[in-house]
Amino acid sequence: MKRLGKYTLKFENPPEIIAHAGCAGKKEGEGPLGGDFDKVFEDAMMGQSSWEKAESFLQRETLKTAIEKSGLKNDDINFVFSGDLLNQCAASAYGMRELHIPYLGQYGACSTMAQTIIMASVFCESGAANYAAAITSSHFCTAERQFRNPIDYGGQRPPSAQWTVTGSGAAIITQSHKSENSPKIAVTHATVGRITDFEITDANNMGAAMAPAAAETISDFLRDTKSSPDEFDCILTGDLGLVGSELLIEILKKNNIDISKVHRDCGVLIYNAEEQDVHAGGSGCGCSGSVLCSHVLSNMKSGKINRVLFVGTGSLQSTTSIQQGESIPGVAHAVLIESI
Amino acid sequence: MKRLGKYTLKFENPPEIIAHAGCAGKKEGEGPLGGDFDKVFEDAMMGQSSWEKAESFLQRETLKTAIEKSGLKNDDINFVFSGDLLNQCAASAYGMRELHIPYLGQYGACSTMAQTIIMASVFCESGAANYAAAITSSHFCTAERQFRNPIDYGGQRPPSAQWTVTGSGAAIITQSHKSENSPKIAVTHATVGRITDFEITDANNMGAAMAPAAAETISDFLRDTKSSPDEFDCILTGDLGLVGSELLIEILKKNNIDISKVHRDCGVLIYNAEEQDVHAGGSGCGCSGSVLCSHVLSNMKSGKINRVLFVGTGSLQSTTSIQQGESIPGVAHAVLIESI
Repeated sequence: MKRLGKYTLKFENPPEIIAHAGCAGKKEGEGPLGGDFDKVFEDAMMGQSSWEKAESFLQRETLKTAIEKSGLKNDDINFVFSGDLLNQCAASAYGMRELHIPYLGQYGACSTMAQTIIMASVFCESGAANYAAAITSSHFCTAERQFRNPIDYGGQRPPSAQWTVTGSGAAIITQSHKSENSPKIAVTHATVGRITDFEITDANNMGAAMAPAAAETISDFLRDTKSSPDEFDCILTGDLGLVGSELLIEILKKNNIDISKVHRDCGVLIYNAEEQDVHAGGSGCGCSGSVLCSHVLSNMKSGKINRVLFVGTGSLQSTTSIQQGESIPGVAHAVLIESI
Repeated sequence: MKRLGKYTLKFENPPEIIAHAGCAGKKEGEGPLGGDFDKVFEDAMMGQSSWEKAESFLQRETLKTAIEKSGLKNDDINFVFSGDLLNQCAASAYGMRELHIPYLGQYGACSTMAQTIIMASVFCESGAANYAAAITSSHFCTAERQFRNPIDYGGQRPPSAQWTVTGSGAAIITQSHKSENSPKIAVTHATVGRITDFEITDANNMGAAMAPAAAETISDFLRDTKSSPDEFDCILTGDLGLVGSELLIEILKKNNIDISKVHRDCGVLIYNAEEQDVHAGGSGCGCSGSVLCSHVLSNMKSGKINRVLFVGTGSLQSTTSIQQGESIPGVAHAVLIESI
């Protein structure tokens, strides 16, 4: 591994994503990416006795699907890096409990999918792991009642509010020499973000809290790798939604970086925002997880796109910190995924 | 890096712990290790407007102290791996916010200090980082009101209950060749644990939930490294408390492993259990963090002890999962710290 510039890692033997799976709920299944998910669960309870247990089930099913697609067994996976939005990352702990894979819980809010991929990649390239799994989940019902209101309260949502995705994404990563695939989908670079805080205090406007973090990490990455936005098929944020995406493009333009032609956002892609009444789009670490690990990686596999800069964006507040008048810290981590 | 046996990593160029700091609250300052902490804060509020802000302050002060002792600047640290017990790891996010160090949030409950050391070590040995920081915190008042009861409720505590430590520990880790220190305190091996669940449902008996995880990880480590307990100056768990420690020794004895002579537990060491009325001892990821990064590493530095197998133990429940009748999953991660 090599450090490039101040903040970026270059994987000299780029770890390969050998399998991936994205699963989602009913509403996501009805959205524009519905056909791309490996599984769509029509019932929010997924046969479990609580939404929280359903989210754990969803995460486990998604990882199982990815492992199955990889041709490996649970026992072959040396580490699972897993995260979610629930207090004490409980969806991950209970979701991964029965799999008996060495477990390292990650918390980066909605940036977690990028974080888990970075962890799995560093562990694979360094030889710490032969195979590692990166996985995240979120569930509309568990997030809504934990962070906002009881589901049946039916409060008004402002236009900047995002809709927590019921979804999960999993990727199985390995050392590059462990597979003979060619071309391979590989993680070639990573930039870990610093926490930024632009003193946004409105928990219904997380896009605005995360956009400055995304702008900083994208700037860091482009500077460190001496590259420009037009070198990528897509700069994919997850999840700024409509409000945050506009802000991101605006902030970067002020720094003479124009990503408008190649920018996409997982929170915007996953729903038909107007028809599906989701206001500013999707959010939750299952949003970028499920979109990346189904739609995006499938398009890379089929050769439709070849270079994706995936930028996971997270807002790190808790309900307690907001109630205490704190502002919302944002963070963003970038991974460059390439067909090589 | 090399994989040893099924679960253990051997660092061929062992990352060095170049500096460490442990800070704590008043009660911990009055305990048997009081003289070893870098700073003791007499006031639980630490000059902040809430206990949560105090915990963030404590974590930040502890990391600042460790960085200062290392002779580095914030800007030299490539990554900070940080974790705590608060919902959404908020003590870490707000604690690390102003430091502008690339941030990767970790959640392993009370096993987090071992987890962050493993992360920092893998990142350093692989060349991903020149310098990385590992840090955890907990605070009695934030944990008590989040997990149990309002502080002023004054409920009865059963004998198996542990007392959440107000404390924080930080270690600064680097690639072995970056320093000329000799002897060095280095991280030579690590074993990441799987989630175990022995169907304990009593959140006031976390020691019992974590002991089987600790037993499994210690067994994995000893088998993978072909070593026996008497080769270590100390097998240090954090934090099983009195109840969990007894259980751990009992479980391992059934597997013909006797650690009774070398076993210590951070939760037992930090208080005079009877005099200080803490029942089964201390807990919280600031317990093992502050004990390891003050008392234990200082004793290694002065040559009193040379080989410590530190086993962080975490119970991964949330209040919601317990209310829903779930049992408590446990996890334990081991790092072998040696003077070499």
